[in-house]
This record gives sequence, structure tokens and C-alpha cells, in this order.
Amino acid sequence: MKHTVWHHLNLCPHGDPTATVTDAAIAVRDGRIDWLGAASDLPAAYAQWPREDLGGAWVTPGLVDCHTHLVYGGQRADEFAQRLAGVSYEEIAKQGGGIVSTVRATRAADEATLLRDAATRLEPLLAEGVTAIEIKSGYGLDLASERKMLRVARQLGERYPVTVYTTFLGAHALPPEFAGRADDYITEVCEHMLPALADEGLVDAVDVFCERIGFSLAQSERVFDAAARRNLPVKMHAEQLSNSGGTALSARHRALSADHLEFLDEAGVAAMQAAGTVAVLLPGAYYFIRETQLPPLDLLRRYNVPIAISTDSNPGTSPVTSLLLMMNMATTLFRMTVPEVLQGVTQHAARALGKADVHGTLAVGRSADFAVWPVTTLAELAYWFGRPLCARVVRHGETVYTRPTAPLSTHV
Amino acid sequence: MKHTVWHHLNLCPHGDPTATVTDAAIAVRDGRIDWLGAASDLPAAYAQWPREDLGGAWVTPGLVDCHTHLVYGGQRADEFAQRLAGVSYEEIAKQGGGIVSTVRATRAADEATLLRDAATRLEPLLAEGVTAIEIKSGYGLDLASERKMLRVARQLGERYPVTVYTTFLGAHALPPEFAGRADDYITEVCEHMLPALADEGLVDAVDVFCERIGFSLAQSERVFDAAARRNLPVKMHAEQLSNSGGTALSARHRALSADHLEFLDEAGVAAMQAAGTVAVLLPGAYYFIRETQLPPLDLLRRYNVPIAISTDSNPGTSPVTSLLLMMNMATTLFRMTVPEVLQGVTQHAARALGKADVHGTLAVGRSADFAVWPVTTLAELAYWFGRPLCARVVRHGETVYTRPTAPLSTHV
Ligand SMILES: [Zn+2]
Ligand SMILES: [Zn+2]
Repeated sequence: MKHTVWHHLNLCPHGDPTATVTDAAIAVRDGRIDWLGAASDLPAAYAQWPREDLGGAWVTPGLVDCHTHLVYGGQRADEFAQRLAGVSYEEIAKQGGGIVSTVRATRAADEATLLRDAATRLEPLLAEGVTAIEIKSGYGLDLASERKMLRVARQLGERYPVTVYTTFLGAHALPPEFAGRADDYITEVCEHMLPALADEGLVDAVDVFCERIGFSLAQSERVFDAAARRNLPVKMHAEQLSNSGGTALSARHRALSADHLEFLDEAGVAAMQAAGTVAVLLPGAYYFIRETQLPPLDLLRRYNVPIAISTDSNPGTSPVTSLLLMMNMATTLFRMTVPEVLQGVTQHAARALGKADVHGTLAVGRSADFAVWPVTTLAELAYWFGRPLCARVVRHGETVYTRPTAPLSTHV
Repeated sequence: MKHTVWHHLNLCPHGDPTATVTDAAIAVRDGRIDWLGAASDLPAAYAQWPREDLGGAWVTPGLVDCHTHLVYGGQRADEFAQRLAGVSYEEIAKQGGGIVSTVRATRAADEATLLRDAATRLEPLLAEGVTAIEIKSGYGLDLASERKMLRVARQLGERYPVTVYTTFLGAHALPPEFAGRADDYITEVCEHMLPALADEGLVDAVDVFCERIGFSLAQSERVFDAAARRNLPVKMHAEQLSNSGGTALSARHRALSADHLEFLDEAGVAAMQAAGTVAVLLPGAYYFIRETQLPPLDLLRRYNVPIAISTDSNPGTSPVTSLLLMMNMATTLFRMTVPEVLQGVTQHAARALGKADVHGTLAVGRSADFAVWPVTTLAELAYWFGRPLCARVVRHGETVYTRPTAPLSTHV
């Protein structure tokens, strides 16, 4: 049995900076929280436990990145450079660019390569305090390649100190071999890919890209029905480029979350509220594609829809690997408040995964998964940008990351 | 005498990704470049030198961050949170917020505190390959406090592996004790502060914030004249919030750079071209204050004005500590091209400091200051955001930074 009292810390147990405990302590037994509260209230039973001094730092729940496409082959930096140099989208498509180039590279890569590349994108997130992450498939678009992506996602969770939730996103784009036959591809997704991957234990949730350039409402509903037959929860990429009504459909299917939502209308917001669906906002994609339509924050607030923030880390529209930067962009670009964005990467993000009982909150009986921030005020997490702020990450009660003392600082 | 041949690398000697040498080598003797070029052309004389294998990585000149306010007391995160929560600018000012709060905190802090705080902002920049940085005063606004800031800037250069250029920005804001007496304060700047600090060797250049909310053209010119009496080069914060004609004034005074420039007009651009003044663009401030007026990129290109990119790292309008993120923002927000932003943080940034002969280019006879990037294409430096990409930094021929092997990766 291992026990530790973490002390000399300020505690933000729910990711809400307006409900904190200064000079707090956390007693951890065998990786679980046994007690937490004001240090002055620490029961005598813990007096003899070994202590870890956090030097007055702030402690939040481990962060949750609830919407990523972290596993894929290649990258699209040269395509990015070409577009900036004035090469047209058509010309790039003619050269084989765009999402099909990522599909091609992902299909061609072996698991070891996909794992190594995804790990280089995962590590910066873990060094920011992320202890749970969702990873989608969707660049394979055939059974073998989707399986490969989901297996790599599972391996990341086995090899790194992070809980990985996998989402099957077979309905992400139409693969070239199904050109002009979207309904046939959806049949393949629903009748072969989804059941096979679910049988293999590779699928925690099912997602669809519902959009004019993605799949229709009817096609999306077929995927949701296939998920229901397997008792798998659903979520949706919805209303990113147009108001197609996907969010209302998602809500009818009790979706865990609807994601993006720039073009969401009030009826959709009301449907989300009724269904308990979380709004996942993705400021990195909004920024990178230079979107100008803001998600309907005021409506989401008025209807008390929980709002999560995530990276959407992907090679086409959000090549980002920092959840802290997303907090800054959610405040700067969306005018979300500091309490909103902090809860958006903790308790509300956990809820978007259907795991609000496991992640995103520090409470007695839960796993001791937390991040240590040597800052004066929690607002600094959203205020600074491009700055590493996390000093230490604890998961299941063990320190799994300590910010390296930069060799540079030996010069001081 | 120490000599090394760095090899198994791809070389981008001028920060121009269209003029590179693949499979290159760099021979370094006593910290200076003795030879560089295609590895196949390496002269026989270097055959016996010790070798360092860079594993096929890209090598660029050490980066130059040519406009920062890195030294200051405190931070303004709680003020940031309040503004997002709807507290008015007037209310915050009534509480003592805004720039005066930074002036108060800077005046109150001792040198050790300022040094420690600035060091935590400098380290992330150095870990991105920055080997030269400009640091301005301007939050002291009295002789003793401006001296304190510039002394701390010099100390950073002594204690860290980076060349620091100091800029006296006494004319940054009107200190409270001179309220309503801006001309008197400019007299103080020109007749007492600037000469005293220059005598102490603390001033490499002189800057002015020329703006309706800063200082007038006539006041700016008095500062420029005072700088000229000391043979100090000048630069200006110009046309950030309005077109006030500061850039043309700067050009008449052969300014090294004019910085911000969102509201610059064609006459100002033409004046810059004639004077050889560099345009320093600051996308972090543009982003953070949610500016919508874009700097006149097409005019700057048409007149062949060299364009630099910098962080403007400061607590009020750009609390950022990543030059790579500024490269991404310059492409995403300003539509600058990849070659433009790479040159903007190397040779053009060096030129903005009047140091194009020292920094920003790798050539025979120069100091071996370079950054090592394990990427497939240099475009990745601008494409990814929120991602650490620099694996190693070499200064004066010595490795001064190596990206730590994250403890995390021991799990793979
Ligand atoms: Zn997505
Ligand atoms: Zn500035």
C-alpha cells in the first residue's frame, strides 16, 4: 500500500476557478484520493503519511482533450506553404493534396510509423497535464486501415501515462474507391467496418462528419442506428461550415457531444439542452481555416449547455498540439471566460466523453490524476500563450511527468 | 583550438527555404564557421576533424526575436479574466489596472525578481532556437527603474546563451507623476534618462511609442534627436492603432525599423524603402487585441521593404513566449508565405537590429549559431502550432540546448 499527502498547494477540484481551496491537501492511497480539503482540516489519521510539498502551486484535475485526430500518416506542411504562395485549391487537389493525401499516407504507413509519429504529437499534450484523450479514426476509410489507426490509438494508451478513448469515424470522408457511391460506403461502414471493429474492442464511441462536403443527415442517421445496435455512444462533427441540422439529429440520438457548431441555431441549442449533449468547441480549427462565423456562445450559455474545448489536432484544419493554446484562443477568439475554458478542458470535456464520473474532477474515491501549475493565479493558464506552464503531472497517484530543468537554466 | 564538422544535415543558410543545400556539412573552428556547403564538396583538409551527425535534420541560423518587452514585474492575467467577464476598461483603470499596474509592479520589484521572472519567459524562446533577442525598457519610466530593467536585460545576456540587444523605450507611456505634462516628461527622457543610461553602456538603440495614446510626432522627433546626439540608432512603435505618420518620421531619421504598422499607408512604405528601414510585424499583438486592420503586406512586398516577425512579448497586448507560434500567426492571420516568415525571424530580424552582419545568416567567418530541426520540410516550422520542434541549439559552435528526452517517452 502506498500513501502520500500532497500539500502546500492551492486546489481547483472541478476546474472552476471560482470554487477553490487555498492552502489545501490531498491524501492519496493506492492511486486514489482518500481525502482532500483545506490543509488545516486534514484529519489526524493522515498525520504520519509521507508528504510531498508542491511549493504553493495550483493543482487542477488532469486535463481532458476530448476531440482529436492524433493518429495519421505524413503531414501537409508543403501543401500549406503552396496555398500561402497562391496555388489554387484545384491545383493542389490535382496534385493529390487535401485529405486524400492523408488517407493515402495513413494507408501506406505501418503501425510502428503511425505510433512513432502520433507519439511526437501526444508528448507535448501530456507535458501540459493531459491525462485523458480521445482519438478518432477516419483517415483509413477501409476496414484494415481504420483498424490500424484504432490499434495505434490503443497502443498510445498502453505505452503512455494517459487514458485513451477511441472513436470510430469511418464516416469522415468518402474514400476515392467509393466516389459517387456515398450510400454504398455508408453501408460498408455500418454493416462491416463498425461491427468488426466493435467486436475487436477497438471502439468506445462513433462519430460522423455531417456536412455538405461530408455525409447527409440520412447517412448520418444510418451510422447512428448502427452504433445503437452495438450500444455504442455517438457524437458528431456538426454545423462547422453550414447549418445542416446535424446537431438536432445528434440530440435525438442522445449524442455525447456535437462538435464545432459555428453555424448552430437556437433550435439546435435547445435540442442539445434537452438531450444533455455537450457542445465541443474547437478554436484551433476556427483559427487555422480563418473562419469568421463564431459559435453561438450566448445561446449555449442561455440554455446551460455544457461547453468543452479541444484541440481537434489534425493535419488539415488544426495542426496543433497544445490544449493550453486552445484555452487562450477560446478566450481571445470566442470571448469565453476563464472559468468557462477551465471547465471546458476538465469536467465538461470529460462529460463529452461520457466519463464525467472518471475524469475532470478531483474527489474522494477517484483516481489521483492532477496537474501542477506554478502560477500565481489560474487565469494565467488562459492568459499566456505559447508558454509551457505545467510543472508536474500526477496520474494514479504517481508523478508521470516533471518539467525538465532546462540545461539552459544552469547558466543562471 | 576546437574543431568540428557537423554533417548529415540539410542546410538553410539564409533562412530562405528556396535556397537550401541538402546533405550539407558545416566545419566549425573555435566557434566560427570555417566552411559550409554540400557534404560531397567538403575539402580534404576537414577529413580528420571530429564529426557530429545531425541525423538528417534541417539546420537554420539561430532565430532572432527583434522586438520584445521581456523584462517587467507581475503579470495581468486577472485583469484579462475580468475583461472577459465583462468588467469595463474604465472599472479596471479605476482599480489601478492597465499599463500603470505593470509600471507599479516593475518599479516595486528588485533586480533579482525581475531577472527570475524574465528568465522564465526567455527559456521557452531559447528552447526554440533563439540566439539573439532585443529587450526594451519602458515599464520603469523613471531613471532608476529604467536602469533596473536594462541592467536585468544585460544580465540575461550574460547568464544565458543568447545575445541581448537593449533598447531604451523611456517614451513608452506617460508616467503618472507627469500626468498632463508630456512635454516635460520628454525633456526628462531626452536630457537626463537617455544620456545617463547611454553613459552606463545600457543602451543599444532608442525606441518611441508614437500614437494618439502615446507620444506625438514632435515629441518622438525630440527623442530621435537626443538619440542622434549619442549616435544611437532609433526605431519606432508606429501606426499600430492609427495612421499618425510616425513611420515617415522614422525613415527620415534612418530608423532601423518601424514596428506594428497595421495602419501604414503607401507614402510611409515608400519612405521605409528609401531609408532601408525594416518593417517589424507583430502578429501576437494583432491576435491578442483582436485587431482587424491588416498590415499592408502587398505594399511592403511591392516596395521590397524587408519584413521581420517578432513576439512583442509583453504583459498587456502580447503575453506570448513562442517565436514559432508567431510564424504560424504571420502565415495564418497575415497570409505571409513560408519563405517570408522564415526570413522574418532570421536575416530580416537581424537587420531590424542593425546586426545583419552578425546574426540571421550562416556564412564563413561568422559565429556558428544555429538551430537543428528534425522535420521533413522547413514549412513545418510555420505549419504546426503549439508544438515544440527544435531539437538542439548551437551557439559559438557549442551545443547550448538539447531537447530533453521526455521522461514520458520511457513508457514507449
Ligand atoms: Zn475533428
Ligand atoms: Zn512593443
